[in-house]
Amino acid sequence: MSIAPPPVGTPRTPTHAPAAEQFVDRHVGPRGDDVARMLAAVGYDDLDALIDAAVPESIRSGRPLDLPDARDEHEVQAALRAIADKNQVLRPMIGQGYAGTITPPVIRRNVLESPAWYTAYTPYQPEISQGRLEALLNFQTMVEDLTGLAIANASLLDEATAVAEAVALMWRVHRGKPGTVVLDDQLFDQSLAVTVGRAQAIGLPVVVADLSHGLPDVEGDLIGLVVQQVAASGQVRDLRDVVAATKERGGLVTVAADLLALTLLTSAGTLGADVAVGSAQRFGVPLFGGGPHAAFMAVRTGLERMLPGRLVGVSIDADGAPAYRLALQTREQHIRREKATSNICTAQALLAIVASMYAVYHGPDGLRAIADRVHARAHRLAELLAEHGVEVEHDVFFDTIRTRVPGHAREVVAHAARLGVNLFAPDDDHVQVACDETTTAADYAPVIAAFALAGVTTLEVSEDGDVDLGFVAQDRPSVPLPDWATRTDEYLTHPVFHLYRSETAMLRYLRRLSDQDLALDRTMIPLGSCTMKLNATAEMEPISWPQFADVHPYAPADQTAGYDELVTQLQDWLAEITGYAAVSVQPNGGSQGEFAGLLAIKAYHHARGQAQRDVCLIPASAHGTNAASAALAGLRVVVVATAPDGEIELDDLRAKLEQHGPQVAAIMITYPSTHGVYEEHVREVCGLVHDAGGQVYIDGANLNALVGLARPGELGGDVSHLNLHKTFCIPHGGGGPGVGPVAVASHLVPYLPGDPTTSPTRPSTEADPAVHVPPVSAARWGSAGILPISWAYVALMGPDGLRRATEVAVLAANYLATRLREHFPVLYTGPNGLVAHECILDLRELTKATGVTAEDVAKRLQDYGFHAPTLAFPVPGTLMVEPTESEDLAELDRFVDAMIAIRAEIDEVAAGTWPLEDSPLRNAPHTAASVTADEWTHAYSRERAAYPVASLRRDKYWPPVRRIDGARGDRNLVCSCPPVESFAE
Amino acid sequence: MSIAPPPVGTPRTPTHAPAAEQFVDRHVGPRGDDVARMLAAVGYDDLDALIDAAVPESIRSGRPLDLPDARDEHEVQAALRAIADKNQVLRPMIGQGYAGTITPPVIRRNVLESPAWYTAYTPYQPEISQGRLEALLNFQTMVEDLTGLAIANASLLDEATAVAEAVALMWRVHRGKPGTVVLDDQLFDQSLAVTVGRAQAIGLPVVVADLSHGLPDVEGDLIGLVVQQVAASGQVRDLRDVVAATKERGGLVTVAADLLALTLLTSAGTLGADVAVGSAQRFGVPLFGGGPHAAFMAVRTGLERMLPGRLVGVSIDADGAPAYRLALQTREQHIRREKATSNICTAQALLAIVASMYAVYHGPDGLRAIADRVHARAHRLAELLAEHGVEVEHDVFFDTIRTRVPGHAREVVAHAARLGVNLFAPDDDHVQVACDETTTAADYAPVIAAFALAGVTTLEVSEDGDVDLGFVAQDRPSVPLPDWATRTDEYLTHPVFHLYRSETAMLRYLRRLSDQDLALDRTMIPLGSCTMKLNATAEMEPISWPQFADVHPYAPADQTAGYDELVTQLQDWLAEITGYAAVSVQPNGGSQGEFAGLLAIKAYHHARGQAQRDVCLIPASAHGTNAASAALAGLRVVVVATAPDGEIELDDLRAKLEQHGPQVAAIMITYPSTHGVYEEHVREVCGLVHDAGGQVYIDGANLNALVGLARPGELGGDVSHLNLHKTFCIPHGGGGPGVGPVAVASHLVPYLPGDPTTSPTRPSTEADPAVHVPPVSAARWGSAGILPISWAYVALMGPDGLRRATEVAVLAANYLATRLREHFPVLYTGPNGLVAHECILDLRELTKATGVTAEDVAKRLQDYGFHAPTLAFPVPGTLMVEPTESEDLAELDRFVDAMIAIRAEIDEVAAGTWPLEDSPLRNAPHTAASVTADEWTHAYSRERAAYPVASLRRDKYWPPVRRIDGARGDRNLVCSCPPVESFAE
Repeated sequence: MSIAPPPVGTPRTPTHAPAAEQFVDRHVGPRGDDVARMLAAVGYDDLDALIDAAVPESIRSGRPLDLPDARDEHEVQAALRAIADKNQVLRPMIGQGYAGTITPPVIRRNVLESPAWYTAYTPYQPEISQGRLEALLNFQTMVEDLTGLAIANASLLDEATAVAEAVALMWRVHRGKPGTVVLDDQLFDQSLAVTVGRAQAIGLPVVVADLSHGLPDVEGDLIGLVVQQVAASGQVRDLRDVVAATKERGGLVTVAADLLALTLLTSAGTLGADVAVGSAQRFGVPLFGGGPHAAFMAVRTGLERMLPGRLVGVSIDADGAPAYRLALQTREQHIRREKATSNICTAQALLAIVASMYAVYHGPDGLRAIADRVHARAHRLAELLAEHGVEVEHDVFFDTIRTRVPGHAREVVAHAARLGVNLFAPDDDHVQVACDETTTAADYAPVIAAFALAGVTTLEVSEDGDVDLGFVAQDRPSVPLPDWATRTDEYLTHPVFHLYRSETAMLRYLRRLSDQDLALDRTMIPLGSCTMKLNATAEMEPISWPQFADVHPYAPADQTAGYDELVTQLQDWLAEITGYAAVSVQPNGGSQGEFAGLLAIKAYHHARGQAQRDVCLIPASAHGTNAASAALAGLRVVVVATAPDGEIELDDLRAKLEQHGPQVAAIMITYPSTHGVYEEHVREVCGLVHDAGGQVYIDGANLNALVGLARPGELGGDVSHLNLHKTFCIPHGGGGPGVGPVAVASHLVPYLPGDPTTSPTRPSTEADPAVHVPPVSAARWGSAGILPISWAYVALMGPDGLRRATEVAVLAANYLATRLREHFPVLYTGPNGLVAHECILDLRELTKATGVTAEDVAKRLQDYGFHAPTLAFPVPGTLMVEPTESEDLAELDRFVDAMIAIRAEIDEVAAGTWPLEDSPLRNAPHTAASVTADEWTHAYSRERAAYPVASLRRDKYWPPVRRIDGARGDRNLVCSCPPVESFAE
Repeated sequence: MSIAPPPVGTPRTPTHAPAAEQFVDRHVGPRGDDVARMLAAVGYDDLDALIDAAVPESIRSGRPLDLPDARDEHEVQAALRAIADKNQVLRPMIGQGYAGTITPPVIRRNVLESPAWYTAYTPYQPEISQGRLEALLNFQTMVEDLTGLAIANASLLDEATAVAEAVALMWRVHRGKPGTVVLDDQLFDQSLAVTVGRAQAIGLPVVVADLSHGLPDVEGDLIGLVVQQVAASGQVRDLRDVVAATKERGGLVTVAADLLALTLLTSAGTLGADVAVGSAQRFGVPLFGGGPHAAFMAVRTGLERMLPGRLVGVSIDADGAPAYRLALQTREQHIRREKATSNICTAQALLAIVASMYAVYHGPDGLRAIADRVHARAHRLAELLAEHGVEVEHDVFFDTIRTRVPGHAREVVAHAARLGVNLFAPDDDHVQVACDETTTAADYAPVIAAFALAGVTTLEVSEDGDVDLGFVAQDRPSVPLPDWATRTDEYLTHPVFHLYRSETAMLRYLRRLSDQDLALDRTMIPLGSCTMKLNATAEMEPISWPQFADVHPYAPADQTAGYDELVTQLQDWLAEITGYAAVSVQPNGGSQGEFAGLLAIKAYHHARGQAQRDVCLIPASAHGTNAASAALAGLRVVVVATAPDGEIELDDLRAKLEQHGPQVAAIMITYPSTHGVYEEHVREVCGLVHDAGGQVYIDGANLNALVGLARPGELGGDVSHLNLHKTFCIPHGGGGPGVGPVAVASHLVPYLPGDPTTSPTRPSTEADPAVHVPPVSAARWGSAGILPISWAYVALMGPDGLRRATEVAVLAANYLATRLREHFPVLYTGPNGLVAHECILDLRELTKATGVTAEDVAKRLQDYGFHAPTLAFPVPGTLMVEPTESEDLAELDRFVDAMIAIRAEIDEVAAGTWPLEDSPLRNAPHTAASVTADEWTHAYSRERAAYPVASLRRDKYWPPVRRIDGARGDRNLVCSCPPVESFAE
């Protein structure tokens, strides 16, 4: 029987099969009806009308996004699998700062893959961040103990920038006076490349020296020395003399150290270091094709206030209980602006937490056992190579063997790759073999076979690499190190490194910590300018796939075709979205993107013979990091005034351009502005600066208000950075990782960041900056391992979905502004009284009238189960709210209800019902312990404290501590795990 | 330079490199020092001495476990990857009850891969289980709505056993009187095989009939009819006449239905069904090589008390708030014992939750859109086949097309497989093609090419399968169904199916629900006999790998070599551990293992001409499921008395053997006994039964006390089942999945369960049960998809690790018994006053003296942050505690501290400090809302209520509801989602 025509019947559905739910409908919170209701509240008939009213015609792009059509989650993951399969995962015996490591599965699943950890924001609101603050304090304690130094920060971006930061720190200690920094030529290539580039930008002389003959002569002051304890060659040198000589000359000493090696080797502190830096990657953080990884920096007592980056400290809360918080925030670049000596804004919190938990899980004995095994295996491998006629160069090493194979190095490496092992050839005559936690005795044979196949051993080998080592390659006994190299002091003695050693205990510790925190998996995080949108699981899952996670950044190109395809496509898509000619994903944070963009501008001027252009114009309302980045790029910051409506004062801009004419290198503006409005005059601003010969840097922090509607490159921008962790769905990870690609117009393409991993020779300190722009990150593709997230987002949304996200984000912000306006004035608005993607609620009049501060409101919101909006930026006394497109109407309304209820509480204070000092606002947040205390003396009731709105009764988040005394924590700086007794009742 | 000898230095470490932490140290909670302290408390010098004292010499095994040595997590996952890679994942167009489906990533990560969900226990303690009870209530509501019936249970094991359960239910409604059940021959093969086997065991006549000619004639009463709405052939038939005929003859009607098809097709209720059953697999549950999946059963009003399995109902708590609980538990087999008509103990909670969340996430419109698309694609494919000369048999179908290809079926299937698509050949002349959610237009070409390559089309095809369909195979418009088949009523109208449609909203809903529950990721779950040990992440991760998750159970053997290897090895290992000749992993729950074991015994007797043996001896203390299983196997239960010390009364056993001599089929005993002691006389018991010609069934529920020390097969057992979800680390999943392999001595090997998926022909109801033992599960390997968990556990632990786990489990139980004995008498002990792996705390004297019940203590433990121990089993008025080896000393001590503190509270009641009715014990558990209420009138303080021990102040779990009124819930049965208004304050 053949197929019959469709049987007669009543069609129940429309003619065309309805599409199943599209991803855009999963990403965007408000459904059809919700959008209609929100539009009605704002007063528009449809989304197009609202967007036409909100977004000035003058900035709108004339053409839609030219991107592949949206695909569903299943299709996009299949496409990503196909890309991932083009990467090859070999045994990673390359070393050079990146080691194979085993992420304990319990940590992988319950930190790296847990929304409770990865969707958290930076812990600026410490009361709802105690879990990750504790984890980061563990990280600091771990680094302090292992380096033997007094105080460590909560992570830096990568080891290379950490070295650069150490150089800047040493210069700061030297009070910025002239002098020279000596860099060990045994630092990793990428550390040298990044550090020399950073030093050049600020005009600090550095000398790269072979220290085997002692400290080189330098003219003038010796600012400091950076040495690498486990040299790039693998050798462990006796550094005592060179350290002493540096100290004698009045210089500081930075030791670049390997955390695992430090469990066996003399600590940096014992060596005499003032500063220690390094990478925590090998503590359980996947190779990720180069990043993200957490770097660390520790300093001796006396330098704590010089330390860049975030620092977790211990203080107490309003009940006197110990509580964690970020300490010494006034050091940070967003406060110090152009006086900053670092622009590091994003840390690598999630990865630092993974590394800290690796130490918690293994404890000191477990770490030492791993290090012993790595060391013993490297030694055994060296013996085997030597036995078979291979020349091994050093006799003291930790994990890396250096062999001399004149003229045969590339051949050995090629054979090894064919046998499944990646080795490292620093030049044609040497091959290095790095052992790590994943190395087993089974790896000996292919390594030796590779040397044999290249004909540099006395061994017989078959064409397919079978060698007979003539023995069972058993694990070796532990191998002693020389006395001078041997660590004798204890570390990781705090109970936290001893309590959670079974998987069950570890699992519960991770759960307990994450339960203390409020992340996106429980509530909206309405942070202005931070764009806390959905981090979809379909986007997140692929980063765990071995083909993305286990790739060494120095793996040869034929093994990384997948990454190459992914990065190239993503860069192209981002260029299309931003309207620029090219994009580099290398910068591993927005701050690094800014720095890279400014370096491109400088190089461009230099190449055109206008090296004198060194003034960077920055509006008064700009984020502090802009000024810090300009300073780091060696530019002078000149502030341009902001008009009361939030726009740049054109008259002042004209005056400044006139004044600095041929010195003007650039202007840095943010669009939409940090005030959250679409300024009308952006093209005019760009034109004025261009006319003066300057370049225009458009900060892409607020790109979420533009995607699909306008392009910075079409507005007149020459360069922008964007934040993949804002607009493109990389999660904030509790304070990092971030990715800050830099996008440039065609004339700046030659000046995109250089490649730190394929530079054929050591970077020269003489390099012409107009030609060689230095790398800004340790790895060519920066944080390659998390780029699948943004790739997937763009692929899932397609051009229409991306535009819809922007439109709904603008709608959501205007909905909040409309509904809250009568309760809290909205500070700035743009065309037609509309805001862009965020709005500023002005508390100043209320504060004047009642004493209730924006901070009180922020803390009280915690009692309502919300993360606070951005506090006091860009305007003190205000709250900036960005709902994003991902929050549905129910959640927006829950927020509105909370804010209205809080306004009513403020009114009660105004009415004298409660004294301000004993109001639920000032006493916020309330812990469960505080509202169940037997004694209750407050002017308001327990139920008012705990359940100000009824919906909290079935779904209540309890902050684990009350409001934290920040000043006290800064006065009495404690930045390592406090003794357990301090938690006794 | 050659490699130098190790430099001189002081060796810091012992001669041999210390091993890094082994997995056994992650799995086993107590560390070295802890073990010593625990031993000291119990009064033994070392673990060997304790074990020698606790475990009778007479039961000890003479030889160690012959298993592969322990490997670390990295190695075991690598080995599993290699096994997984031997499975091939093809497009799964086989159908037959298993469909390709897309698990939404947010559900995969946050349910299936979330410890908060998968480590939860069965919700017998409803106050700390509200989250999963709500999710299961959603499942029930979903099934009720889609089937159009009044009440659904919270899942069954698989569709085949669900059909068998429906037959049993219909017989029960018929009051067990003689009669016949008619089975549609269009039921899936596995449903027929399992159901006929189950019916035979209890002597219920069934007739398998072709219904195309109407209802067959049957002699005597017609008990009922089971029809499959979407036939195994794919056809959708007009069943109205056959249903009417059945009703006329006084029979009940069961409809086996497809949940996705029900979104388009007339509901079972509208069809006139009394019962509906089916599988929820295609609602987002991976194929898993056959399972685990959730099946469902729904019944019309009036049959609710006949429904087998778990049923979630709505009641209220002590404050009158709505609260969920398991309803009508007195129906269950562990209560009804041999009067039970089902032995279903484990449900498939985790998978039912996945399926329910799939419906919550898609909503009715989303589900209908998916169904429409599947239907349209099947129709398009049928058209294409017909256009190219292939005969398509039916004109009304949902997702499956049946083609007639005389003599060419195997060939078509083979060509399709080569092109990456699995089709189904029910015989040599037909090929069936099933479409599903994952089918795209890209699948049309290889399907048609397979027919072309077999020469049954008019189409040209190249050898590599390229066909030119001559058009772009676009999605089809929705295809109408005939009126009689078309659904017109609404479904899934409850708000829960409309609120969580963005991923953000879904993520938060999942988090909120799981936060309400206490699972192993937050606390020990000291449930006697349930062995709530670590479910290690390294064991869990592989079940998500596509090579395990996406394999169709009917995939040909050459595609499932990985599963074959895994299952074979695991079966061999389990046989070695239990001391039996062979193991079958097919039973997908302990109850099914019992049933399979008893069927094997029956078949053995039958084959030896002793079919008259139909008495099963069961000790009075046995778990009720034993008796229920015996009844289901058609055996008569005779109870053997238990002595006061918990052992079987040998005199009574002798008397019963004498009395029933040649009728004795078997004895079912549990070892160690359900009293948690190692009985001395087990070998004697076995000998007596064997002498009487009976077989010995040793229930393996307590195998965790034996592994590595003793083997049931060596004690005299002929058959055992074991619980992979107890001893072998499969998580309890909030009430399933379970796996209950059956292990048999060599003489019973021929009687292991049959294979439901490869039986060449339909099972005959005449089959000789001595030769053909029927399958007990729908799939050959049962819940294949989770077997990697147990495989990994055995591989990770190795023989020494497994034995150590047992020893530490025994130590932990004795440690608790020792420390708690002075506060709560320990009811039973074995040799030297020691317990085995669990202990029973006797509350009866305290209850008599104070009125405080074991239930009060159980509920009060929730306030202390603990899941309660087993309540009232095996002895009413007691608590049975099993700590397992995975809890570390700190957690054991936390539990001891809580129990001692509770004992002090009982003493306060005894002393009259608090009246019992207003004591913290009787009022337990306390919600946060209750202790923060403005009014507090209790005799004890708020702090006493909330924070009876200080450690709770920083880590407090708040039960979301207070004690639940169970009786009220059973009186007013509500088993679907209550209206939202019921939650209003």
